[in-house]
Amino acid sequence: MNQITIHPIGKIYSPYIEIKDIPIQGIFKDDIEAWLELKKEYAGGLKDLDKFSHCILIYYFHKSDKETIEGKPFLEDEKHGIFAIRSPHRPNHIGISIVKIKRIHGNRLYFTQVDMLDGTPLIDIKPYTKYFDNRENVISGWLDKHFKNGEIPDKTIIK
Amino acid sequence: MNQITIHPIGKIYSPYIEIKDIPIQGIFKDDIEAWLELKKEYAGGLKDLDKFSHCILIYYFHKSDKETIEGKPFLEDEKHGIFAIRSPHRPNHIGISIVKIKRIHGNRLYFTQVDMLDGTPLIDIKPYTKYFDNRENVISGWLDKHFKNGEIPDKTIIK
Repeated sequence: MNQITIHPIGKIYSPYIEIKDIPIQGIFKDDIEAWLELKKEYAGGLKDLDKFSHCILIYYFHKSDKETIEGKPFLEDEKHGIFAIRSPHRPNHIGISIVKIKRIHGNRLYFTQVDMLDGTPLIDIKPYTKYFDNRENVISGWLDKHFKNGEIPDKTIIK
Repeated sequence: MNQITIHPIGKIYSPYIEIKDIPIQGIFKDDIEAWLELKKEYAGGLKDLDKFSHCILIYYFHKSDKETIEGKPFLEDEKHGIFAIRSPHRPNHIGISIVKIKRIHGNRLYFTQVDMLDGTPLIDIKPYTKYFDNRENVISGWLDKHFKNGEIPDKTIIK
């Protein structure tokens, strides 16, 4: 298997028009709302998702025009391997974010904890559940020093 | 954008040869080890990932030969929308799992909390961090009744 063809199932409509507007991770901005609109044929797939508080969005970093093996995250000047950071400039340009479900109407799902650009192609939605997706005793490499003592670093919003 | 072409960055080598052998989610089987082997050109992307306890694997459900809008999860007989369950028979056939990193040697990463078939094409690896990926006060729809009082349901291992 050398190539896999996938297709957008919908699109994300976000208040973030330019990359510089986006928080590094949406969890730090709970007051901004966005929505996704599924293609009509997929609307039935949302059945019962409104009973979940959170979901995982898988999407395509459509504005990334490069691929690097190492990269410098926004929080620091040291380079790390692309699989140790969440940069969009990665093989396959696929992003994931956990978002908070606000409401679902037809083929639209409204959410907060947004960190995607307006117009982002959506690839999948999965239910988020603490039973499968939360972990205890997590060690987070280069990130831990930026969040010590429960602090949120200044640079979580890109200037 | 109608189509997106992606390519495997490597392959997962797992003790699970047949679908019936796989636990529903790997978190319930912490003693089984698997590994992934990256294509040589991506090995440098693993730099500093060994300082993380967990990572997120994104992969292709290569044995799924159908796509459904609703599906019946293993835990129950009621149908739910495909975006409210983690079934492989979804648009784009993309899976994600959080796994526990045991060690990294060259282009191989060994891990536990395995729930993929042997030979699964790997699409991406992301660092897992509690700052971005853990959520508090999670409500998990149809799943909650199966895990009440901290129980793990009998059917987490497929018979």
